[in-house]
Amino acid sequence: MGEAQVSLKHLFRVFTKPEHKDSKLAQIEQHLSDNIMDFLSQHVVTKKTSLEEIEKDFALPSVPESPEFVSEHAESLLTKLVAHSVNTYSPTFIGHMTSALPYFHLPLSKLLVGLNQNLVKIETSKAFTPLERQVLGMMHNLIFDEADAFYDQYLHSAKHALGAFCSGGTIANITALWVARNKLLGPQKGFSGVARAGLAAAYRHYNINNLGVICSKRGHYSLSKAVDALGLGREQLLTLPCPQQTLRPEDALAQGRRYQEEGNKVLAVVGIAGTTETGHVDPLDELADVAKELGCWFHVDAAWGGATLFSSTNRAKLHGISRADSVTIDAHKQMYVPMGAGMAIFRDPEDANAVRHHAQYILREGSKDLGATTLEGSRNGMAMMVYSTLHILGRRGYELIIDQNIEKAQAFAQMIDRHSEFMLTTTPTLSLLTYRICPQGVQEALQLAGEEEKIKLNQKLDRLVVGVQKAQREAGKSFVSRTRLEREELNGLAITVFRVVLANPLTTEQDLRNILAEQVDIAKGMRLYKELNKAARQIVQAAVQA
Amino acid sequence: MGEAQVSLKHLFRVFTKPEHKDSKLAQIEQHLSDNIMDFLSQHVVTKKTSLEEIEKDFALPSVPESPEFVSEHAESLLTKLVAHSVNTYSPTFIGHMTSALPYFHLPLSKLLVGLNQNLVKIETSKAFTPLERQVLGMMHNLIFDEADAFYDQYLHSAKHALGAFCSGGTIANITALWVARNKLLGPQKGFSGVARAGLAAAYRHYNINNLGVICSKRGHYSLSKAVDALGLGREQLLTLPCPQQTLRPEDALAQGRRYQEEGNKVLAVVGIAGTTETGHVDPLDELADVAKELGCWFHVDAAWGGATLFSSTNRAKLHGISRADSVTIDAHKQMYVPMGAGMAIFRDPEDANAVRHHAQYILREGSKDLGATTLEGSRNGMAMMVYSTLHILGRRGYELIIDQNIEKAQAFAQMIDRHSEFMLTTTPTLSLLTYRICPQGVQEALQLAGEEEKIKLNQKLDRLVVGVQKAQREAGKSFVSRTRLEREELNGLAITVFRVVLANPLTTEQDLRNILAEQVDIAKGMRLYKELNKAARQIVQAAVQA
Repeated sequence: MGEAQVSLKHLFRVFTKPEHKDSKLAQIEQHLSDNIMDFLSQHVVTKKTSLEEIEKDFALPSVPESPEFVSEHAESLLTKLVAHSVNTYSPTFIGHMTSALPYFHLPLSKLLVGLNQNLVKIETSKAFTPLERQVLGMMHNLIFDEADAFYDQYLHSAKHALGAFCSGGTIANITALWVARNKLLGPQKGFSGVARAGLAAAYRHYNINNLGVICSKRGHYSLSKAVDALGLGREQLLTLPCPQQTLRPEDALAQGRRYQEEGNKVLAVVGIAGTTETGHVDPLDELADVAKELGCWFHVDAAWGGATLFSSTNRAKLHGISRADSVTIDAHKQMYVPMGAGMAIFRDPEDANAVRHHAQYILREGSKDLGATTLEGSRNGMAMMVYSTLHILGRRGYELIIDQNIEKAQAFAQMIDRHSEFMLTTTPTLSLLTYRICPQGVQEALQLAGEEEKIKLNQKLDRLVVGVQKAQREAGKSFVSRTRLEREELNGLAITVFRVVLANPLTTEQDLRNILAEQVDIAKGMRLYKELNKAARQIVQAAVQA
Repeated sequence: MGEAQVSLKHLFRVFTKPEHKDSKLAQIEQHLSDNIMDFLSQHVVTKKTSLEEIEKDFALPSVPESPEFVSEHAESLLTKLVAHSVNTYSPTFIGHMTSALPYFHLPLSKLLVGLNQNLVKIETSKAFTPLERQVLGMMHNLIFDEADAFYDQYLHSAKHALGAFCSGGTIANITALWVARNKLLGPQKGFSGVARAGLAAAYRHYNINNLGVICSKRGHYSLSKAVDALGLGREQLLTLPCPQQTLRPEDALAQGRRYQEEGNKVLAVVGIAGTTETGHVDPLDELADVAKELGCWFHVDAAWGGATLFSSTNRAKLHGISRADSVTIDAHKQMYVPMGAGMAIFRDPEDANAVRHHAQYILREGSKDLGATTLEGSRNGMAMMVYSTLHILGRRGYELIIDQNIEKAQAFAQMIDRHSEFMLTTTPTLSLLTYRICPQGVQEALQLAGEEEKIKLNQKLDRLVVGVQKAQREAGKSFVSRTRLEREELNGLAITVFRVVLANPLTTEQDLRNILAEQVDIAKGMRLYKELNKAARQIVQAAVQA
């Protein structure tokens, strides 16, 4: 491979002159611009390549000594990286929460990088600061719907923040609980507050053994990161079983009371609006009552489901969200913005002050620098992508997409339910559902089987699901993910299920039919499938004979 | 303004068809691609617009109801946002740490968004995971220079991580101290460890009053965020005065001993490699000794200065960095990558396990999912930008730029030193320096003045610096920032100074001469300048007469 020249003149060129329009990089760009689907289907290889194989291309641990020509590098990006990336645009990749994006993000991404603002402070972001504040305000409005006078007062107030923009839902959840912690254990006479004095001193001052967070077992792993990082400890994440996939308010209340009677304090009840695994929505309104009863913070993790609020038809599914103290929404999920756009929204504009920081040279007192109340410091201008998508789709555009996603999930659920080889395991509240491969005969056998036989059948089914999921992924045409869910009818035993997210507007019902057909084909080619059917027949026969 | 159609058909189009090549958005893109400097100088307005004025364009708090045409939106982005953004590309904007970027980032940003990978897990990132691991390995190698066998073993190990890629230096610093905290207060017989049991329980088990972090007063504000968020409390950030701009090892040791004698434990000594305000480098090797002596973690915040390691000539300035337990480097600073690329690098590949998290559906035990050991969850593929820049510039390319930055800073320092209107306040170790406007006569008067007069003169100088800095910023042709620095000769009193970062390869010495000339012009037009000179003359005359 040729070496580029190491000279200031050459470097100056790299900073000031675009690549020639016939160069490889320019060709890549043009192809992406003209037809992204074609670009991806041409360059992302579908045949299975093991991770170990891919790693060989990324094995050198030392910084390359000499410069590489941009075009040669572009070529190697195509063969090493793009070829082995995931085609998130594909309508048949319905196993995760990333989807095709509107086209305008491609040119906008270039504008974003061309401007390269740093949103930590106004000095390096200027109009991006009011823009980001407006975006946070719009989301606040969508959730809490305060009067105009409220936004007139707070939207651009140096002393307030309606939320914190961040890289994703995990940081948003951590930020929300950080604010809640600092507010609960705030300064009092004789105590400088947890932010200054630390957690151990705060527990002593407030006479608390432990501070806990209540959520269902479907709570996102970020909550566990949050209680670890914030010093509460992962044992204080009180995750309650949820055989119906949602947190039962009476369980949360009982748990909270028991916990507080033991000398602890509940920091927050977390309701989920769209669980990562099944898309269920906790009973938010009732959980708000529970939080009120326990005298604690109410956080709603709407990273996935928050966008449902755009839909007049479906927003009632999140009833009670306006009673939250804080809400997490990921714009890079159902708001169709590229990866890296999370938000924590605070009902009370004063709350963010619980984590306010100042410094000599930036974030000065009275400044509107965003870094004063965010966990992150230097950050990029992703808020622009959210801003643009909000304008270009509008609430009504989002509504159409969200409604369509949910309808598509319902149609798919029906398709599965009617299919003799499959069994629906959770129905879609939003656009997620889970199911498993479970031939009609096995379904009958499960009704008739004894406890032990039932467990054995389920274990076989689990292995079948894992096998089919892996084989389908490796075949490369389509992708569904999998997870494990506890089942009430199995005394809480967990089963392995396919997990599907119907967020890609390009996915058609025909795609879904094809995915099921491929799964049946794969299953029928597996010995396990035959064994399973045989075992099921034996159980049915035994039952008939008995 | 026209309303775009609200129909599924229209929306489908937004997801599948690029804008027409004559559209406004395509024009913007073309202009950026052809000549970014021209684009910015044409669209970013240089005349002063107050923030309040800009806020008027971002005042509506509600989500727009109807879709907007992409081209109309693009037009409004230009006038509302781009017009009032900061021209970070400009060679005369030398007041912050963002600079012109290599051209190839523009097309690459499009590829990044087109692929839209999520690096939390392999399922949604595939080759991006080994790529990111390789980038972290390269940085590890640059700092710690382990043998090949080391990288063969750890680079792609599912049970290890050489670092954590994140959105920026703040998250990197928090991650490093989180790892340090969890490791120090780890599980022992009868104690499940701080990650599980929480900080208060850990203090009880380990019999610790408080956990502290030692750094100089020049420590970045992110350290204060870190000790707050991690539950140590901001009072436990033990910031030591540093009249010479660097942390004195003997002070750090004395402070650490005193602190530990009081029943506390030092979590970490933090050395800075390139302070945000003056670019100084703490004596890292000696601080490593201090940390060893205190039995604590040694973290180096090399967010700015880390890239100095690319230079054979200048890397000795960071001597001792290879003894760190963890190092923060921001690729979006002197590695010329767009905003949003921070890294925490760990010397010991086991250390990241102190914060390892697992979940049912992702980050499964044994997987190589990156989200298992990062603070963030869903994240974008910024590592690709770092990877590409490392390859396209190469170590020797970086070396040229870094050396040139430092030489330019030295040349500017000399220029200031020889100029009768200015006074250099800190000399450049790396590519930062500070100075103030201080006419020759005032410099003489400062030598002769009594204590009280000296303070008064300095206050006037402070106001002059603030006035000139603001006026220059508002004039829009160039930008230097300002900060406050304590001065030993003033018994620790702080003075206001100009702060300059010479990181833009396009900045010429002529640009620097012009910036000084503009500052002199502005100053000479201010009444304060005349007052100051008059006061100085009176002091000199009084001294002569005495």
